[in-house]
Amino acid sequence: MKLIADATIPALDACFSAFGTIERLPGRAMRAEQVRNADALIVRSITPVDAALLEGSSVHFVGTCTIGTDHLDLDYLDAHGISVANAPGCNAEAVVDYVLMSLLTLAERGGWRLGERCVGVVGVGNVGGRLVARLNALGVEVLCCDPPRAEREGGDGFVELDTLIERCDVLCFHAPLVREGPHRTQYLLDAERIAALAPHSVLLNAGRGDCIDGLALRNRLAGQNDLSVVLDVWEHEPDIDASLRDLVALATPHIAGHSLDGKLRGTWMIQQALAAHLGRDIEGSFSALCPPAAVPALTLSHALPVEDALRLCMRAVYDVRRDHDSLHREVLMQGIRKGFDHCRAHYPLRREFATLEVTLVGEAAELASPLRAAGFCVTLA
Amino acid sequence: MKLIADATIPALDACFSAFGTIERLPGRAMRAEQVRNADALIVRSITPVDAALLEGSSVHFVGTCTIGTDHLDLDYLDAHGISVANAPGCNAEAVVDYVLMSLLTLAERGGWRLGERCVGVVGVGNVGGRLVARLNALGVEVLCCDPPRAEREGGDGFVELDTLIERCDVLCFHAPLVREGPHRTQYLLDAERIAALAPHSVLLNAGRGDCIDGLALRNRLAGQNDLSVVLDVWEHEPDIDASLRDLVALATPHIAGHSLDGKLRGTWMIQQALAAHLGRDIEGSFSALCPPAAVPALTLSHALPVEDALRLCMRAVYDVRRDHDSLHREVLMQGIRKGFDHCRAHYPLRREFATLEVTLVGEAAELASPLRAAGFCVTLA
Ligand SMILES: NC(=O)c1ccc[n+]([C@@H]2O[C@H](COP(=O)([O-])OP(=O)(O)OC[C@H]3O[C@@H](n4cnc5c(N)ncnc54)[C@H](O)[C@@H]3O)[C@@H](O)[C@H]2O)c1
Ligand SMILES: NC(=O)c1ccc[n+]([C@@H]2O[C@H](COP(=O)([O-])OP(=O)(O)OC[C@H]3O[C@@H](n4cnc5c(N)ncnc54)[C@H](O)[C@@H]3O)[C@@H](O)[C@H]2O)c1
Repeated sequence: MKLIADATIPALDACFSAFGTIERLPGRAMRAEQVRNADALIVRSITPVDAALLEGSSVHFVGTCTIGTDHLDLDYLDAHGISVANAPGCNAEAVVDYVLMSLLTLAERGGWRLGERCVGVVGVGNVGGRLVARLNALGVEVLCCDPPRAEREGGDGFVELDTLIERCDVLCFHAPLVREGPHRTQYLLDAERIAALAPHSVLLNAGRGDCIDGLALRNRLAGQNDLSVVLDVWEHEPDIDASLRDLVALATPHIAGHSLDGKLRGTWMIQQALAAHLGRDIEGSFSALCPPAAVPALTLSHALPVEDALRLCMRAVYDVRRDHDSLHREVLMQGIRKGFDHCRAHYPLRREFATLEVTLVGEAAELASPLRAAGFCVTLA
Repeated sequence: MKLIADATIPALDACFSAFGTIERLPGRAMRAEQVRNADALIVRSITPVDAALLEGSSVHFVGTCTIGTDHLDLDYLDAHGISVANAPGCNAEAVVDYVLMSLLTLAERGGWRLGERCVGVVGVGNVGGRLVARLNALGVEVLCCDPPRAEREGGDGFVELDTLIERCDVLCFHAPLVREGPHRTQYLLDAERIAALAPHSVLLNAGRGDCIDGLALRNRLAGQNDLSVVLDVWEHEPDIDASLRDLVALATPHIAGHSLDGKLRGTWMIQQALAAHLGRDIEGSFSALCPPAAVPALTLSHALPVEDALRLCMRAVYDVRRDHDSLHREVLMQGIRKGFDHCRAHYPLRREFATLEVTLVGEAAELASPLRAAGFCVTLA
């Protein structure tokens, strides 16, 4: 069979050469005549897949190696019996890495421990759900807010957003953008709720920028500056509010999910979906797809305070301050819009915590459980 | 023989029990009658050693496990044939760790490479000399300014301070405080020289605070803010200039030399001196004295950009941003003087780069030479 693929998708050969020949095209410029006699199309979010591209083609499978499907005309694909696959959650672990790293960085700066805080998670889907799982495993108190899930699954285990704001001193937003309906998320955190945030609490958003009223947040920070804010997503990206960026503790350009592992997981999930579509068995595991990490191993030999050990291991893999500093520098040099885009376009290769094998020697053995909970691969020496 | 020692000196037993019995006393409160029938006195900089303490005693050896001797009445000791030893350079490696870590942190933030800069070192003694050696080994261009040494050794290899200011974009001060004479260092960097510093240059002081005119520096930063400044030492410690602290890129409370290894090296050097004084051979090496590090080992398996690899390994041992953040936090909470002293009194245990064994796998082998140059222990897998 013939596959057409966005040339920038990693591991195309490893994942798809067993199915047939792969033709690589630039994702932004796929044309109808190029895909006419293809069987499968492997894309990312930059390729609109609709009648204009597919009319009259032999394509019977479309896979997007990304979590979203906004660029796919699902009605058209469905009406024409074309099988569709996306990769929900492929980069969710990377976002959770980002969140834990950011919270532990703020904890170090502020002289507090994450373990003594109550964390509220808003939007408990692929990202939020994994965050809750890791926080629970770390023994951190967590409250969940996800009205759509509460409705479907029964309210057990979920609280209202206002309850969460009242009871938590760390708030993490991982909700999608919903512009209408009962579960609207646009300005979910509006001026009134921003005013209700307890002094010295932490607010993190790695979901969608429009879920928070940026102007109200900027005003609270400019006036009281009594919140620690971490923003990876913004209103009007890449033309984000420069003064808000100046006021937040950690500001990054929508890169929380940008790990190599996340991208490879996306490709791999589409490989699995194509195999299922064709009724074929495919050899090879996801981990075999992942190259060794730049820092594959680290040894600890003291019973360090848990959160010090976590920070140490995390920073051997990824340090969010680097991304914050880069955005700051590029914005100074190129202005907001260009600086934001530059940082995304030149994002350095990043791995996930799971790529680090931490060997624990002697008394450091007591760190095994929290390190595993945080996502590391742990070996006792 | 009988030894009296400041109880807070580490490794007293390991270093001195072979010589005789050790009596531990609080360093700030040693009294004449307590040392009367001792043979040797082992102190730190907080114990004044003079006639008042020693008159009529049997002490024939005084060792201070610190670099300075200001607390010792050298004339008195000499006149009474009492052998004296200090530990020059015992914590010099720790200061060099601090300097390299700080410069590479600023480089990461600013998006430049240390390797493309010219570093000027002012004061090329125990600290400055080791810094020059490591920078040279790393292939960084270095200029040295040390008029007393230039006078003694001939001018070769040394330049005038003003030449150095003209030609270097990174300036590191490691001069002692000299209040008078031709080689006066007080306000060595005065208002005029501060004005002459090139925009975007880096200024670091880990020698003595009084070598730089703090007010002039503050004014330049408040006006132009076009320098990156790292200060570990300040005028009027612990009552340092709060507004200057706010304006510098990295502000730390005179802790550049505070490594455990530095302290142990101090004890060990005095052990060696006592053995020499007694004409005795003593078993045991310095490295045997050092406990294993909390992070003894790390593996690299990619040919990372050299300075990324250096930062990664350095931060597994010591991250100067932690000290900067702690000072910032404690000053906010307790005010300048108390915050400064608090951070020094509660300084976390810190190790030197040499305690980390970096294992290089595959293509990472090309990092062996810069990592060794920076002070790490390197093994090829
Ligand atoms: N910053 C990044 O790099 C990055 C990476 C991945 C995902 N994301 C974003 O994070 C968001 C979540 O991603 P995901 O993969 O977990 O999506 P998901 O669809 O798996 O989960 C979203 C969850 O939010 C819940 N939700 C919907 N409306 C809500 C409301 N009003 N209040 C509370 N919860 C509500 C849904 O019920 C669902 O459980 C998305 O917007 C996605 O675009 C960002
Ligand atoms: N920040 C810290 O934690 C820390 C730690 C160790 C040492 N120090 C300080 O660093 C300074 C240097 O320590 P060291 O052990 O290298 O001392 P050192 O005596 O070994 O070296 C000092 C050098 O400075 C030179 N010097 C003197 N006057 C000079 C001048 N006018 N211009 C340029 N150079 C001049 C001397 O010739 C000598 O080579 C001392 O003041 C010491 O107190 C600070």
